[in-house]
Amino acid sequence: MVCGEFELIARYFDRAAGSRRDVEKGIGDDCALLNVPEKQTLAISTDTLVEGIHFLRDIHPADLGYKALAANLSDLAAMGADPAWLTLALTLPQINEDWLRDFSDSLFELMDYFGVQLIGGDTTRGPLSMTLGIHGLIPTGRALKRSGARPGDWIYVTGTLGDSAAGLALLQHHQRLNDPVSNEALIKRHLRPMPRILQGQALRGLASAAIDISDGLLADLGHILKASDCGASLNLDALPISDTLQAHFSREQQISWALHGGEDYELCFTVPEVNRGALDVALSHSGVPYTCIGQMRAAAEGVTLLRDGQLVSSGKKGFDHFAGK
Amino acid sequence: MVCGEFELIARYFDRAAGSRRDVEKGIGDDCALLNVPEKQTLAISTDTLVEGIHFLRDIHPADLGYKALAANLSDLAAMGADPAWLTLALTLPQINEDWLRDFSDSLFELMDYFGVQLIGGDTTRGPLSMTLGIHGLIPTGRALKRSGARPGDWIYVTGTLGDSAAGLALLQHHQRLNDPVSNEALIKRHLRPMPRILQGQALRGLASAAIDISDGLLADLGHILKASDCGASLNLDALPISDTLQAHFSREQQISWALHGGEDYELCFTVPEVNRGALDVALSHSGVPYTCIGQMRAAAEGVTLLRDGQLVSSGKKGFDHFAGK
Repeated sequence: MVCGEFELIARYFDRAAGSRRDVEKGIGDDCALLNVPEKQTLAISTDTLVEGIHFLRDIHPADLGYKALAANLSDLAAMGADPAWLTLALTLPQINEDWLRDFSDSLFELMDYFGVQLIGGDTTRGPLSMTLGIHGLIPTGRALKRSGARPGDWIYVTGTLGDSAAGLALLQHHQRLNDPVSNEALIKRHLRPMPRILQGQALRGLASAAIDISDGLLADLGHILKASDCGASLNLDALPISDTLQAHFSREQQISWALHGGEDYELCFTVPEVNRGALDVALSHSGVPYTCIGQMRAAAEGVTLLRDGQLVSSGKKGFDHFAGK
Repeated sequence: MVCGEFELIARYFDRAAGSRRDVEKGIGDDCALLNVPEKQTLAISTDTLVEGIHFLRDIHPADLGYKALAANLSDLAAMGADPAWLTLALTLPQINEDWLRDFSDSLFELMDYFGVQLIGGDTTRGPLSMTLGIHGLIPTGRALKRSGARPGDWIYVTGTLGDSAAGLALLQHHQRLNDPVSNEALIKRHLRPMPRILQGQALRGLASAAIDISDGLLADLGHILKASDCGASLNLDALPISDTLQAHFSREQQISWALHGGEDYELCFTVPEVNRGALDVALSHSGVPYTCIGQMRAAAEGVTLLRDGQLVSSGKKGFDHFAGK
């Protein structure tokens, strides 16, 4: 892009709001300069979103700005980190000021909510895509990893599962539920997921392992099982399903979306028996429900899914992850 | 991409080589976990490269892997930082194993040379592009910024200028010099620039401001002038021009490329009179020449370019940056 275009874009992203004391130099030099406080560990995650693959072509830029950051923040939530700094590399096919305003306003609103400061990035011309680099801080030694679960630990999830997949299906098929409130609720769960930052922080020292549910419960729990070398038994009757999903879709559809639907951005975590009481204290004030859905097993026991007390199996991808272990 | 393709790609980038003690967790969890040593400040820079815009469509993947990282490292050099960790977000139109091997081998060779560890990233399907996030460390308070120059400080550059632009011109126009050694030398300067990491570190505490020359000397020095609120006088007769460039191109072409040609990835820096002796000690062992090309002036004096003792002006973009101040 020519120089003037860059300066135009920079206007939308160079905002004073949310300036943090640990940022010695933000945008405007060859590098940003950051001071990590003593006894804090830095957590970094990178996400790329490409039009037509990670988001629908007709998505509103305000929804895109929100969701790109929310998905990136969700990785910090899964580690129990406190969000701090963002880098944004944005590739745009052309300059559209309305688009830039809506996208950046929404992005900055969520950044401000979590105290995140934009510290740098890059703007280039090309097919619409973006790469976000989120940086968070965790008291040293207290990060939630995927690898700490042990047989006997209880498996939990925050919130409800499957709503985002339902919302996506409504958008993709241009369908509407006959109840507009339910319709909007499910679409909002897809477009505006709330990263479980506070819940992740509350789980430090209590959960033995954690992950965020971006690819579907079974696929993501599979990562915990692999990293922790465990099996698991899940009680499908315990899966937390929203009233909205229950009211409008078959039980089979609910369970399928809950197990395999992606982009819920809830946390899946494991808790040793000894910590269950403390867990109730820690999460009861977080404003989000949490549900025990199963228990970790020895790796040799593999994975079992129980429904109405009966063993069921699934041929879907997430289950294949399990079965392939 | 389907799961198997991701695992294929991961094989090329998940290498044990170069594991650093400050990396608590690299690739394989929701976030990487890094421990910044005490009294060190973190420096972060992000670069996006899009095919057809930042690199030629027929570039060899080994050259691309090298240059993408070299350009990113050059931003650390400009701050005087020690390279530490890299994130790589790679978007590929399809899986080509030969391409992946050549690209990643070359990338890892340069990472190993500078002790950099790959700590995460993302791989997606789409038009070829990549975003690199480089992280370096600097003793707190010793970073080289653009904003520290004062009138009277001397202006220096490392190495020689204009070679990269000459190499690009040869590649773009499919021309060859009649001397194959010169031909290869200029193309190599374009495809394989050496980031001036050691020189940047040697300048800590000596240079009052620094920047790397990615957009051309005049454009990049312009950033120092703006950030430091200064003017400058440059002696064009002092510009360091390689013997190769002198042997094959007109004096006008040499000066034009030296002033306006991009991607030299040399450092431009300013040094107060009192530090000039120490500078000679610090840089004399660095293996790269350095040249005084002018002096900082008060902002009110603007920018003057002198050639054969005469005032000259330039209508090119870099100079417009100056003139517009």
